[in-house]
Amino acid sequence: MVTRRKLLTGAGLVAGAGVAGGAVYGVVRQADPAPASAAGHAPIPFHGAHQAGIATPVQDRLHFAAFDLTNPTRGRVVALLRLWTAAAERMTAGMQVGGGALGAPLAPPDDTGEALGLPASRLTLTIGFGASFFDRLGLERPAALKALPHFPGDKLDPARSDGDLCVQACADDPQVAVHAVRNLVRLGFGTAGVRWSQLGFGKTSSTTPEEQTPRNLMGFKDGTNNIPGADAKLLDQHVWIGSEGPKALAGGTYLVARRIRMHIETWDRTSLKEQEDIFGRTKGEGAAYGRTREHDPVDLARLPADSHVRLANPGSLGGVRILRRGYSFTDGSDGLGRLDAGLFFLAYQRDPETGFIPIQRALAKTDPLNEYIQHVGSGLWVCPPGVAQGGFWGQGLFS
Amino acid sequence: MVTRRKLLTGAGLVAGAGVAGGAVYGVVRQADPAPASAAGHAPIPFHGAHQAGIATPVQDRLHFAAFDLTNPTRGRVVALLRLWTAAAERMTAGMQVGGGALGAPLAPPDDTGEALGLPASRLTLTIGFGASFFDRLGLERPAALKALPHFPGDKLDPARSDGDLCVQACADDPQVAVHAVRNLVRLGFGTAGVRWSQLGFGKTSSTTPEEQTPRNLMGFKDGTNNIPGADAKLLDQHVWIGSEGPKALAGGTYLVARRIRMHIETWDRTSLKEQEDIFGRTKGEGAAYGRTREHDPVDLARLPADSHVRLANPGSLGGVRILRRGYSFTDGSDGLGRLDAGLFFLAYQRDPETGFIPIQRALAKTDPLNEYIQHVGSGLWVCPPGVAQGGFWGQGLFS
Repeated sequence: MVTRRKLLTGAGLVAGAGVAGGAVYGVVRQADPAPASAAGHAPIPFHGAHQAGIATPVQDRLHFAAFDLTNPTRGRVVALLRLWTAAAERMTAGMQVGGGALGAPLAPPDDTGEALGLPASRLTLTIGFGASFFDRLGLERPAALKALPHFPGDKLDPARSDGDLCVQACADDPQVAVHAVRNLVRLGFGTAGVRWSQLGFGKTSSTTPEEQTPRNLMGFKDGTNNIPGADAKLLDQHVWIGSEGPKALAGGTYLVARRIRMHIETWDRTSLKEQEDIFGRTKGEGAAYGRTREHDPVDLARLPADSHVRLANPGSLGGVRILRRGYSFTDGSDGLGRLDAGLFFLAYQRDPETGFIPIQRALAKTDPLNEYIQHVGSGLWVCPPGVAQGGFWGQGLFS
Repeated sequence: MVTRRKLLTGAGLVAGAGVAGGAVYGVVRQADPAPASAAGHAPIPFHGAHQAGIATPVQDRLHFAAFDLTNPTRGRVVALLRLWTAAAERMTAGMQVGGGALGAPLAPPDDTGEALGLPASRLTLTIGFGASFFDRLGLERPAALKALPHFPGDKLDPARSDGDLCVQACADDPQVAVHAVRNLVRLGFGTAGVRWSQLGFGKTSSTTPEEQTPRNLMGFKDGTNNIPGADAKLLDQHVWIGSEGPKALAGGTYLVARRIRMHIETWDRTSLKEQEDIFGRTKGEGAAYGRTREHDPVDLARLPADSHVRLANPGSLGGVRILRRGYSFTDGSDGLGRLDAGLFFLAYQRDPETGFIPIQRALAKTDPLNEYIQHVGSGLWVCPPGVAQGGFWGQGLFS
């Protein structure tokens, strides 16, 4: 294996040996399989029963891309999924795409190069298939994979919604996440093109309750009561598809993405008390009303009846739970003197009908937060289970 | 002083003392002036002869905002600059905006809150004034502050260009940079509104030659021959305005911003040899043609005559040099299956006529890189000198 760091060292040695007078092409392979790793952070294994990037401790940054098939034939798509899987295996291990170094001088480089020298940065790549993916390829669509209902207040932009496929790239270094998506886009040429993409600069929902809970752009801690990524029982119960789904998808999950624009300028002129009443938690500590610390259990009876935390709490919804991995975004300004900012909400669940849909039905109806937010993009995909050594993403759907 | 970390601890103590049954407002001040600091990274001092964020070692992330005055009177603008300076002093020290904690329950919080608990993250805030700032306020405009000339190939979008003022926020944590701009926007309400803003996810030009040179989205090391931030002599010669400029601006500098879209999909299909010929450096090591290591001195005679590095080299331009601090961006996709990605180029110089303008004249004319890039946004501002204790940004212009 050639890691990104080793490649550079190798190339340097060739150059140092005295090649001069023009370009130096350091096509060097090394036998040592030791992968690159960030300080204290080993690469996240790509293979396993479940895809990485779901229960994985949430990385700091996100690049999410939705794709449409430009050549929707099974042969082309299987070839692409094999190609993408091979690239994902390498990139998540901190290696560049392609067999070795930068490739031959007269061919385009196998890897675009902007992550050369960077560690794996806990990169994960997670794939999902939309309803249209199954329909366009003539595959049997799982019953749970259908259009999300319209929710009150939705103002969805088709140019930021849906897509035959999606890829979630999470990493602690955004350059590594962007590099990964960009190289998948490049490999997809002729079979799949980018429909839309979204950068997330800051995680909002962690799956590691023992660490500091991050804050969303409303300034509140977000994800205090999230499903912990290490809780296998809760994951089996609420996140992973079990025996109820198509066999090829067992161990997979459903991914809902919502681009939620926040009217932060209006929010910022709202009193602290109103902000806290809306959430039902204090802003500084993040404690539920009637409690003193962030992780004290919520007592629903002490929260305002229509508070966000009360409405979305499993206790209000018959035990419904989702695993969230949302990211804050700021995409310039909107031409009216306001920042185009908000939350790119990502939620994983065993079935949207017992996950996101009942929660959002409750919130869309009465959540006072709706005065300050608007859902402007949406997508639903099913994520296949993890990949075994030698396999490829979604293999079970094609066999 | 109340640091963001201390505020939380303080609020927690109040809450822990037994206040219950509703929101807890932890308005606590502490006498201890020790500022927050990231692991191994002390906050960057705000005060000094020059503004921070120029010669400062380049931080990882950027949020850049251009503003237009909505109420262009000197009184309002001076009041805003005082307010902004006070907020910048606090935020760059890792503290929240405002005198203490989150403020009174029935008022909007003094700080928007999303950076509570985060360290200063080497945040710097750097202000610049555009030609229109001087014109609209009836201030004498410095001779060097005039519209940049049109360069061949420019396709500038007015909605991403110019602005009466600009603020560059750089930090190692993007949440800290976004928080800072957002709070300045909030404080500007009624006097200045956002004209456009730009996030940069990855630095491309470092000013610390002893560290690893970052790569741009073409996969090449970018900034190898940049002015080192620690080289006071070069800074005095090429970056800081001296006795030639208006006295109020001595110690300041001119900032050119260019949003440079890269046609990365086309670039990625170009051979390694052509890519390297275009730059005149190798892609892996970054060595100039005819040399073996990145930092070996460039021998212009061994570079292709029209290579980017040769055209932009001081030796080709009578010694002209600029200090670059550019950042890579990826702003979703462009609706045609391509990522909207590129370089947000930021350059500091003593005078645009002996800095960016001659360099860009040479590049726009013959640089083969122009096949793969396009300048789509532009701005020129003068950055006043640094702020003394008790002073405010741009004070010299108003006295």
